[in-house]
Amino acid sequence: MSHPHPELSQPPGLAAHGLRVVALGGLGEIGRNMTVFEHKGRLLIVDCGVLFPEADQPGVDLILPDFGYLEGRLDRVEAVVLTHAHEDHIGAVPYLLREREDIPLVGSRLTLALVRSKLTEHHLVPETVEVREGNHGSFGPFELEFFSVNHSIPDALAVAIRTQAGVVLHTGDFKMDQLPLDGRLTDLAGFARLGGEGVDLLMSDSTNAEVPGIVRSERDIAPVLDDVFDNAEQRIIVACFASHVHRVQQVLDAAAAHRRKVAFVGRSMVRNMGVARDLGYLRVPGGLLIDLREAEEMPPGDVVLISTGSQGEPMSALSRMAVRDHQIRIASGDTVILASSLIPGNETAVYRVINGLTRLGARVVHKESALVHVSGHAPAGELLYVLNLVKPRNFMPVHGEWRHLRAHARLAALTGVPAKRIVIAEDGVVVDLVDGKASITGAVPCGYVYVDGLTVGEVTETQLKDRRILGEEGFISVIMVVDATSGKIAGGPEIHARGSGIDDGAFSEVLPRLEDALERAAADGIGDVHALRQLARRVVGKWVSDNYRRRPMIIPVVVEV
Amino acid sequence: MSHPHPELSQPPGLAAHGLRVVALGGLGEIGRNMTVFEHKGRLLIVDCGVLFPEADQPGVDLILPDFGYLEGRLDRVEAVVLTHAHEDHIGAVPYLLREREDIPLVGSRLTLALVRSKLTEHHLVPETVEVREGNHGSFGPFELEFFSVNHSIPDALAVAIRTQAGVVLHTGDFKMDQLPLDGRLTDLAGFARLGGEGVDLLMSDSTNAEVPGIVRSERDIAPVLDDVFDNAEQRIIVACFASHVHRVQQVLDAAAAHRRKVAFVGRSMVRNMGVARDLGYLRVPGGLLIDLREAEEMPPGDVVLISTGSQGEPMSALSRMAVRDHQIRIASGDTVILASSLIPGNETAVYRVINGLTRLGARVVHKESALVHVSGHAPAGELLYVLNLVKPRNFMPVHGEWRHLRAHARLAALTGVPAKRIVIAEDGVVVDLVDGKASITGAVPCGYVYVDGLTVGEVTETQLKDRRILGEEGFISVIMVVDATSGKIAGGPEIHARGSGIDDGAFSEVLPRLEDALERAAADGIGDVHALRQLARRVVGKWVSDNYRRRPMIIPVVVEV
Repeated sequence: MSHPHPELSQPPGLAAHGLRVVALGGLGEIGRNMTVFEHKGRLLIVDCGVLFPEADQPGVDLILPDFGYLEGRLDRVEAVVLTHAHEDHIGAVPYLLREREDIPLVGSRLTLALVRSKLTEHHLVPETVEVREGNHGSFGPFELEFFSVNHSIPDALAVAIRTQAGVVLHTGDFKMDQLPLDGRLTDLAGFARLGGEGVDLLMSDSTNAEVPGIVRSERDIAPVLDDVFDNAEQRIIVACFASHVHRVQQVLDAAAAHRRKVAFVGRSMVRNMGVARDLGYLRVPGGLLIDLREAEEMPPGDVVLISTGSQGEPMSALSRMAVRDHQIRIASGDTVILASSLIPGNETAVYRVINGLTRLGARVVHKESALVHVSGHAPAGELLYVLNLVKPRNFMPVHGEWRHLRAHARLAALTGVPAKRIVIAEDGVVVDLVDGKASITGAVPCGYVYVDGLTVGEVTETQLKDRRILGEEGFISVIMVVDATSGKIAGGPEIHARGSGIDDGAFSEVLPRLEDALERAAADGIGDVHALRQLARRVVGKWVSDNYRRRPMIIPVVVEV
Repeated sequence: MSHPHPELSQPPGLAAHGLRVVALGGLGEIGRNMTVFEHKGRLLIVDCGVLFPEADQPGVDLILPDFGYLEGRLDRVEAVVLTHAHEDHIGAVPYLLREREDIPLVGSRLTLALVRSKLTEHHLVPETVEVREGNHGSFGPFELEFFSVNHSIPDALAVAIRTQAGVVLHTGDFKMDQLPLDGRLTDLAGFARLGGEGVDLLMSDSTNAEVPGIVRSERDIAPVLDDVFDNAEQRIIVACFASHVHRVQQVLDAAAAHRRKVAFVGRSMVRNMGVARDLGYLRVPGGLLIDLREAEEMPPGDVVLISTGSQGEPMSALSRMAVRDHQIRIASGDTVILASSLIPGNETAVYRVINGLTRLGARVVHKESALVHVSGHAPAGELLYVLNLVKPRNFMPVHGEWRHLRAHARLAALTGVPAKRIVIAEDGVVVDLVDGKASITGAVPCGYVYVDGLTVGEVTETQLKDRRILGEEGFISVIMVVDATSGKIAGGPEIHARGSGIDDGAFSEVLPRLEDALERAAADGIGDVHALRQLARRVVGKWVSDNYRRRPMIIPVVVEV
């Protein structure tokens, strides 16, 4: 198995009949999926999602794929294929369309509807091409064919990309529930047919490649919900992802069976379920839905709330209920169901919400205590079916951190893909499919692009490093006023500190030392601004380190008057 | 079930024959376990541990129990019973002994040995009383009896506390491996005998109360290790807790069976295993151990390293190996085993290490991919045995977050403890056992005490709040120099920012506005320091909010010359 090395450099030009594959996100991470295919000078993009920041990316709202690779070539983009409407696949579309608004978006009915409603918030009206499973379409030199796949959002698609370089199958995100709620199976027959024709490169979802076995069916959750509803005394609150139409469907069905009314809580939940209902993906029995205000006034035992906030997001309704900062007041006898995954990194936040709700008297049911969630991604047992049916000549695991990509590569090797035909690539790594062989030929710059407030890409790694230091250690600023003519200290030094953990009074201990040092420096004729700053940093830094064993950011400022 | 309310106030005096129980840590959290028992004016403490900080407690090294409750009464403390030598049970002992050095520490042989070696680093030599299972001892009005319990560290004890108020059984941390490696079972026979006598209050470990069933035996890990060792080509690195003597024993045994030499990596691993070996808790075959330097020079296939760092601690050897910043260079064919739990909150750090090692070519085996870890805490199925054998008159779940305490309370109710005799308390809540009935009678102040660098308790919630803002948003300081005589601006305004995500050049846009505002204020005769600061904060704050939709900390500074 080949994998990238830091020494990878700009790749050579692509062979005339070759296909170039470069992921700008989604490889080595779960999120911001975006893959650029290049053939005969034209580009096709599959997915354009966002990544959510981790704790060491403080203050960042979103992370985008690095569009730098497309600079000066956006006019060559034939289309963006969106495999499904999860944020990690569509979230960066508004930012891409800011660069070129008329790039056609290709996707299924529900996917496009959800993308459109998101773009409306950005005041963008996209060009769209609606497709469905079985459809074929040509976009420049790229011949596309779409296949149904089963995932945790309806209407997801896999896409085959035919070019003169060969056939690529990109699965998108999928699992293989054999009894899906909507009867729409992952199209194994289609994959098998394609495999029979010959697939030159399979790119397949690696998220659960480390997990053995298969996923339980979505419909196995129904009896569990039924049981929890049976035992619920007062209000029931179900938190899940705002795009999980089938999960919400099951909650609606359970509510109807238990003669409870339902209110949606949370902006994205209300918006998405409106879209899903309008298009017929969500079946809502007449009279079932009420609004939150009505729900508040009904007896708690007659109500179900379906809410966002399953990941412990601090501003979500559920988090606010857990700290009694929401119009819905949790009380003894209430039942809360977290019918969702627990995304790694969110554990502390989620357990805090669970503890808060429990403390207020609620019974909290979550995936660790009952089968109220099944994953949307195929684990090892299901991935093997795809590998065996498609029999790819080359394999490239996608959609995963290194541990997932490596585990998926191992599965491919077990099904007989030769090790040298398995390519593990990271973001920015260039994979060329030429003469039926996929190989790494180089790498292009591919960084994190941070969205923070209204700015995109202005927050840099240096700014984040500063934030990390400030967040851990606080800062101490030392202000000195210098007479520009005489070079003498005219005011200060003053010390101001925040978050340093040092009592303000304590600085009276170091100030005289600093004054002495400044006087000595003046006597020695050292008076330039840079030297004074260095001196202040050294004196105060040493004092803090000796007395507190800490390393706050020390910021010496010299103001000339 | 009664549980505390924020309106709880200082409790009334304790009845002359009553027993007061106040946890200063460990209730509503996993960590800093410390319970104070009071009877006839005398105090007994069980455990004295630390809590590790979470992401929203930035820069904090450790969190201590709040000793404030003991202020002015330390001379009444008869003893501190240490149930076992985990950090969350012994870590705060050095800080308590700083308050009164001669408090006797009561514990088993291994517990005291590990505590002593920790205290040596703090230049403290404790008074100790060594006890073992079956022992009885009197400490003032407290009659103690000790029971063996099985846990993830050898030589753990439960303690029964007899006073005129009744009999309390405190389990400490335990599980019920029925085939423990050292043959030392949790003493169910003793618990049953005590239950027969009558236990007035059971305080039992709730950590795994949400988990159904029982724990697999520690020895079930051996065949898994054997299999991983069989398939390992090059170096094997096993990361686990530095106190898990039995886990290390199994790795030593597997290494010996596979004719590999072993080196310990990490200060606490080397120290603890030295103690455990000297006392006979760890059996090391002759010639098995080598030092790290020797290990580096041997063929990788002949070596096992046993290391700390299983929680992804950034400065640990394992984390540094994952980023190639360690003398041990991970290479393709190496095998890393994380033979440990994954403490909630550490997921991001641990997966980062796994991904880093995988990227370098190592195979990483962890508890989600193989049975290389079993928990040290009894899950629901085992907790029921204890409840049924002890048949307590009153029950108080301990050692857990709210979700664990509540789940344990539910188990107690199922075994027949009357709901009104189940007390769920938080840190600082006062539980009085009087006339055979336990009830909440009030609460005492009980905050977090932060250790940061060399200081204890100096980092306040305000400082942490500042750090959180600085870490998320950075700061902007606005410096103005004012002539003290004339009240006029003599220098500045200057703007200095760090971590704000705003390019330094951009401030040239707001500076003229600020200068204008300052001039207008001067014309209006507004010149006092406070008003100038307010003005600068308002002007700059509005500009940042309008243009960037962010809220950095804004720090206006007026220096008078």
